[in-house]
Amino acid sequence: MFDKEIYIERRKKLKSKFESGLLLFLGNEDSPMNYADNAYHFRQDSTFLYYFGISEPALAAVIDIDEAEVILFGNEMSIDDIVWMGRQKTLKEKSEDSGLTNVQSSDKLETFLNQCQQKNRAIHFLPPYRPENKIKLSKWFGLPVDALEHSASLSFIKAVVSQRSVKSTEEIVELDKAAAVSADIHLMVMQQAKPGMYERELAAKIQEAALASGGNLSYPAILTIRGEILHNHYHGNMLREGQMVLNDSGVETALGYAGDLTRTFPVSKKFSPVQKDIYDIVLNAYTNAKNALAPGVRYLDVHLTSCKTLAQGLKDIGLMQGNADDAVEAGAHAMFFQCGTGHMMGLDVHDMEDLGEQYVGYTDELKKNTSQFGLKSLRLGKALETGYVLTVEPGIYIIPELIDRWKAEQKFAEFINYDKLEQFRNFTGIRVEDDFLITKNGNRMLGKHLAQSIEEIEAIRAEAY
Amino acid sequence: MFDKEIYIERRKKLKSKFESGLLLFLGNEDSPMNYADNAYHFRQDSTFLYYFGISEPALAAVIDIDEAEVILFGNEMSIDDIVWMGRQKTLKEKSEDSGLTNVQSSDKLETFLNQCQQKNRAIHFLPPYRPENKIKLSKWFGLPVDALEHSASLSFIKAVVSQRSVKSTEEIVELDKAAAVSADIHLMVMQQAKPGMYERELAAKIQEAALASGGNLSYPAILTIRGEILHNHYHGNMLREGQMVLNDSGVETALGYAGDLTRTFPVSKKFSPVQKDIYDIVLNAYTNAKNALAPGVRYLDVHLTSCKTLAQGLKDIGLMQGNADDAVEAGAHAMFFQCGTGHMMGLDVHDMEDLGEQYVGYTDELKKNTSQFGLKSLRLGKALETGYVLTVEPGIYIIPELIDRWKAEQKFAEFINYDKLEQFRNFTGIRVEDDFLITKNGNRMLGKHLAQSIEEIEAIRAEAY
Repeated sequence: MFDKEIYIERRKKLKSKFESGLLLFLGNEDSPMNYADNAYHFRQDSTFLYYFGISEPALAAVIDIDEAEVILFGNEMSIDDIVWMGRQKTLKEKSEDSGLTNVQSSDKLETFLNQCQQKNRAIHFLPPYRPENKIKLSKWFGLPVDALEHSASLSFIKAVVSQRSVKSTEEIVELDKAAAVSADIHLMVMQQAKPGMYERELAAKIQEAALASGGNLSYPAILTIRGEILHNHYHGNMLREGQMVLNDSGVETALGYAGDLTRTFPVSKKFSPVQKDIYDIVLNAYTNAKNALAPGVRYLDVHLTSCKTLAQGLKDIGLMQGNADDAVEAGAHAMFFQCGTGHMMGLDVHDMEDLGEQYVGYTDELKKNTSQFGLKSLRLGKALETGYVLTVEPGIYIIPELIDRWKAEQKFAEFINYDKLEQFRNFTGIRVEDDFLITKNGNRMLGKHLAQSIEEIEAIRAEAY
Repeated sequence: MFDKEIYIERRKKLKSKFESGLLLFLGNEDSPMNYADNAYHFRQDSTFLYYFGISEPALAAVIDIDEAEVILFGNEMSIDDIVWMGRQKTLKEKSEDSGLTNVQSSDKLETFLNQCQQKNRAIHFLPPYRPENKIKLSKWFGLPVDALEHSASLSFIKAVVSQRSVKSTEEIVELDKAAAVSADIHLMVMQQAKPGMYERELAAKIQEAALASGGNLSYPAILTIRGEILHNHYHGNMLREGQMVLNDSGVETALGYAGDLTRTFPVSKKFSPVQKDIYDIVLNAYTNAKNALAPGVRYLDVHLTSCKTLAQGLKDIGLMQGNADDAVEAGAHAMFFQCGTGHMMGLDVHDMEDLGEQYVGYTDELKKNTSQFGLKSLRLGKALETGYVLTVEPGIYIIPELIDRWKAEQKFAEFINYDKLEQFRNFTGIRVEDDFLITKNGNRMLGKHLAQSIEEIEAIRAEAY
């Protein structure tokens, strides 16, 4: 945990945005794997972590604006709990570490909320994403589960998003650490990958290194020779000469802050000429996007810069045709780049995605384009501010199923050279990704430099086997 | 997946136990970590795996007894799904692998169940343990979430338990493999542990090896210098000379079958004299329990044999006193051994725990003793049958909080030497555990031999650093 003053200050700031009512925070519970007591590793809700810092299942908290009171709801361990689960600190000690003085047992919460509802006091809650919390909210507020998302408090969402979006000094220290540890792991993978290995062996090494660092993975590692599959979690393929490995993985620190990096490297010691061509197009898009990052710049424009660089590069090698800017405007580049150039990052790898992309990545004026194939996956569009942390991760992905669909319709035939594309059908995909902090004057890459140019990567691969 | 004939046969056998009605099977969904799309690794429900073999989120199935029909409910991937998640096989292909011909889209299930309810047809379902499935059942059957467990079908539970309890040849092959891979990992940990390492480094190696084997952990690894905490998942301590490491971990195979082994070894090259004394008491209890395993023998009696061996050994070194059998009958040994000697194992490490311990481990005649501290944690009591797979895992755990509580009450003072026990206050704990198949003539240990005697363990530790 951070120093308790930090949590007290965060709660004070949030409270100052409300005149009345109650803010209800639900921590997460243990998630059962194949029966109730065989649970996945516990991950606390990020908003709960941000305001309270206590990573323990089955907690809740209320900030009572009118009474200027903060109440933590939770239970001390029973002797049975201690026998089975052990104890590092009592809940009372943890609450003191968080600057809290009022701790009540969990069974008091429902009655407390009932009383507040009887007095017609406004109870703000955030949109639930965990089914266990949907069940609780549904019961407490007498709402069908399907209605909960729309009953969540917009003012609460917006207040949390505005506060969590701008990272403080102590958060940047954590995010730098997450990115640096992630970079070390990427280097290790690049050094150890060999033809004949299975993807799962490398994925396992990544998991090991994340746990050994004292944290965990911030998301399930993508470690694949089929880099064209954006969120591929299959690890059953063998690495063969001529293929590429796409490694999209990152750690979260013990306090929960995420790193998120991607590198793509050849299984062989060198990239093939075609792989080099495509790699350099992606790297150009990365560089142009990165250089555009600064306060006041809309990330939508950063994304479009990256798309246009990709389209121009693809045109140069004959996979696209016509005017590159027109192609991007029409959305034709999404044959090769189906997703967004990046997203906000913090306590979540897609920061605050549970609170709604429209609030985290867009504004009332700049709404997300949900109709265009590529833009609907752009999680961040709005103007950047000093203190934002985000990723830049352009890529080129050749997806056979997508070629077949679009080619059958002759979709964007003026911009896509389908004949040539057929020759690239099994190319797979390339992505390059780093994490950036928006600074007063521009941006700073988080963590440390990780081999990125073809020369740097081939130098490492030359030593690998 | 196994050959489809196996799933067809299993369903046929289950069906034969019902005269009428429908059996509803709910597969699991992805479990969100910190937002909906950042999910834990997927684990299919074990009963769904047993009867259908398809490990994919958001499936359901119905066996219609009257119509002699089996329907799988699920959706083929959309092009967006394919772009993001990739695809190894279509749902249609997977359903064929499972011997299924009738596949309907997920949105048809609710209507289907409504129609069956209108016709007053009996719909059997199993007690849900995943909150997402509680939400669904609550909606479909108009029941409060709290009422679902009691509305689950007893005949369905009992039919599944009786079928899954007796392992078939192909299941035993998987369970042997799980135990053997688990044993390899234990040996690696025993070879690599060194003073100065952190617990998390070893826990990370275990996780790596489980993933690299093509499976996963069957439960979160317990890797701790505080072995007295039964289900300790904290990995933040440094290993120091004089301490012991308790490693309770096992893999599940790609098909989902579990291994579950425990070894306790010294951080130093040798056990201390006191550690040796206690270790040998535990090993005697293990040996006596193991030797008692045979068809027709009640596991409750195996457990009591193990408890009595522990009590006698503890009496021999002066920690207990009085008659050992009387001490066990009174429950005084539970100061040192708070849990059960073992549990059923199969597709779940605690097999079918979601279906209810009273059905898996006990009978209508032999109910679980829920009042005695030690016996209430004994998950298995009933007579063993050929084909059962279970663990034997006695231990001695010195829990300071428990000493303080019981000593203050002078609980079992006739059997516990509290003065001497104070000298052992920080001893921590020892457990030894292997997995066994009940055979026609007795039992067979699954997997392979793993160093177990003090001599074997010290020989490995001598080479470790």
